[in-house]
Amino acid sequence: MTSSLVHPSDVVRDLDRVRTTSPVVHNITNYVVMEPTANALLALGASPVMAHAPEEMEEIVRIASALVLNIGTLSSAWIESMHRAGAAAGAKGIPVVLDPVGAGASSLRTRTAMALLEGVRPAIVRGNASEILTLAGEQGGTRGVDSSSSAEEAEAPAGALARASEVVVSVSGATDMITDGARTLRIPTDTPLMGRITGMGCTASALTGALAAVNPDALEAAAHAMAIMGVAGRMAWSQRAAGGREPGPGGFLPAFHDALYHMKGDDIERYLPGS
Amino acid sequence: MTSSLVHPSDVVRDLDRVRTTSPVVHNITNYVVMEPTANALLALGASPVMAHAPEEMEEIVRIASALVLNIGTLSSAWIESMHRAGAAAGAKGIPVVLDPVGAGASSLRTRTAMALLEGVRPAIVRGNASEILTLAGEQGGTRGVDSSSSAEEAEAPAGALARASEVVVSVSGATDMITDGARTLRIPTDTPLMGRITGMGCTASALTGALAAVNPDALEAAAHAMAIMGVAGRMAWSQRAAGGREPGPGGFLPAFHDALYHMKGDDIERYLPGS
Amino acid sequence: MTSSLVHPSDVVRDLDRVRTTSPVVHNITNYVVMEPTANALLALGASPVMAHAPEEMEEIVRIASALVLNIGTLSSAWIESMHRAGAAAGAKGIPVVLDPVGAGASSLRTRTAMALLEGVRPAIVRGNASEILTLAGEQGGTRGVDSSSSAEEAEAPAGALARASEVVVSVSGATDMITDGARTLRIPTDTPLMGRITGMGCTASALTGALAAVNPDALEAAAHAMAIMGVAGRMAWSQRAAGGREPGPGGFLPAFHDALYHMKGDDIERYLPGS
Repeated sequence: MTSSLVHPSDVVRDLDRVRTTSPVVHNITNYVVMEPTANALLALGASPVMAHAPEEMEEIVRIASALVLNIGTLSSAWIESMHRAGAAAGAKGIPVVLDPVGAGASSLRTRTAMALLEGVRPAIVRGNASEILTLAGEQGGTRGVDSSSSAEEAEAPAGALARASEVVVSVSGATDMITDGARTLRIPTDTPLMGRITGMGCTASALTGALAAVNPDALEAAAHAMAIMGVAGRMAWSQRAAGGREPGPGGFLPAFHDALYHMKGDDIERYLPGS
Repeated sequence: MTSSLVHPSDVVRDLDRVRTTSPVVHNITNYVVMEPTANALLALGASPVMAHAPEEMEEIVRIASALVLNIGTLSSAWIESMHRAGAAAGAKGIPVVLDPVGAGASSLRTRTAMALLEGVRPAIVRGNASEILTLAGEQGGTRGVDSSSSAEEAEAPAGALARASEVVVSVSGATDMITDGARTLRIPTDTPLMGRITGMGCTASALTGALAAVNPDALEAAAHAMAIMGVAGRMAWSQRAAGGREPGPGGFLPAFHDALYHMKGDDIERYLPGS
Repeated sequence: MTSSLVHPSDVVRDLDRVRTTSPVVHNITNYVVMEPTANALLALGASPVMAHAPEEMEEIVRIASALVLNIGTLSSAWIESMHRAGAAAGAKGIPVVLDPVGAGASSLRTRTAMALLEGVRPAIVRGNASEILTLAGEQGGTRGVDSSSSAEEAEAPAGALARASEVVVSVSGATDMITDGARTLRIPTDTPLMGRITGMGCTASALTGALAAVNPDALEAAAHAMAIMGVAGRMAWSQRAAGGREPGPGGFLPAFHDALYHMKGDDIERYLPGS
């Protein structure tokens, strides 16, 4: 596999596209993160819709430019909606992002994630290493929704998963790794605190949907979303740390949303992890 | 139609009533905004209850002084609860506020909003122009839950809707417009950022419920709720801007809740939009 | 009953254990508070899991060190999941915390809370005085989810409930009271604002789960959780008040989460209510 870093100017271009076109991102996501992910999408400049009733899936997808499926708080009725929305997205040709939250922690989650992977054929799967290892058929185990595996461990299985399912795989960790099975992009994100706030992974998936709506290259879209997450995290950290006291997770989250809103080309040049 | 602005002293009086009596506002609302709307009601001085099980609707309404129905994340079971709660509210004689989130975006939403409008006979319908246009039978179309129509465009249809359904119609936009079909009140709210935070419309509906609990004049109650939204928005903006940096949506939301909590007569005199 | 205060050094010890072992706390809780309670648990150092599908209850409990059942937004499907998870927790021998939100406000809630109390046999029940009075078979009445009764009024019934159901009863109020029917611990928490933020009681229950995961003495675990709530509240208040303006509930919540994250032994010594 070839490997490279993302280019700041490409991230800036995609961010501008999101702000200019304000793509509608349809989310069928978990209860815990609905508000913060909607706010992250709005802060970035996208237009979130949260809707899950089976009867309205086709109509909601009709106004959407991307679909994000997140299995964080599953129930059987919602699984049906995810498949209906996924089928409509496939028919319309808009990208689907799958976040297999907790795959490996229960057979319901693993089974549902696999069924969505095969039935909906998402453009991008974004998860932590443990979830990706589970999907790749490895023995990973999941401790809650945290990852005790590293993105590095997941590299070979992620590549195999990407090739087998023809999907871009985005693995978050200390270094994010995004691969389509041939090309691999790496973004070393070492921002503190982001693991101490619920829904940061889900937010990454939501932003991945927004980026996929404006960039047909799914590998780039997935990588640019993670780059934006990392830049916003560093902006928030430095803004909070400027207060002279070690930042905490409570104040970090609003600062993170402010960073998504204020992010400029200069910030991306300055803070892009690894650049 | 006659047209006028709201009077600061009337807003102060109703705000004092909310704080003094702490009315219980029963919300059947969407998952995305449950927490921020509960917090907005608490910050204002009201007492929010979120409950949706069909079996308990009559008992919960029994302790409530207003009912807010918000169709933002519908499912069939919740529609039944909305009708049961609405019927109980009608029997008890407490005001009902309907927020037809996304009416026009799916036939489920349009149909449900119309059925609630006709079956429950709310005192107030509060939505954006696109949603109100949909209810008024106009061709509006809805792009997500945003409005691409202006409150001005909605004026004639809103008046017709108000007269036909004997309901106060509260249309949010750059200038909020509240009408009972005979009288129309306008509140020019131009606060930045409020469109970049999820649930601000839903919060307006929740506060409308709190105001309707203390003021039997539904037109005034609806207008005073929007006035309080506008004042709190301006207070939050000026408080954030005093930090010397352009505010962002992340920090704005807690500042908005703080403004609801701290709001005094002087703030209303100073910041009431259009006054 | 004997009565005493909690010891700062014991609170410090349990807090360290939470941070060191990061126990997985499985929450079946209400929609309103899912995000803030997950964030409070993360800030404290625990590892929250929110999951409610009946099919996965046994597997999720398998990775958990404590289970928290909160009936704030009930529906029949979730009641089944609570019983299944409770049975699995009982079989595994991990502590269960029951938060009977709104018991007394509807017969569904009262009936469900009683059935969980009897069927699941939680280690700890944590609620406000009105909810505890309801469970104790007293005529309490519930006004929304607030308590109009004081913890003092609930003392005798709480003790009787504790003895009859062999459960630790944690009653929140101006002074928190925790009793196993023989010993009683009191923590005078008089922090302003905490009653003006939704989900603070639910957060107390979630933290009680985290503490119960690391301390097999349920009375101590329940008391230490309330002590940590009180210390974090005072830290947040003093941090906000240092800004020179009366704090509001919007800014208080992130400051409260930051306090949970930053809390050190010195803070507990300094701020422990009543110490």
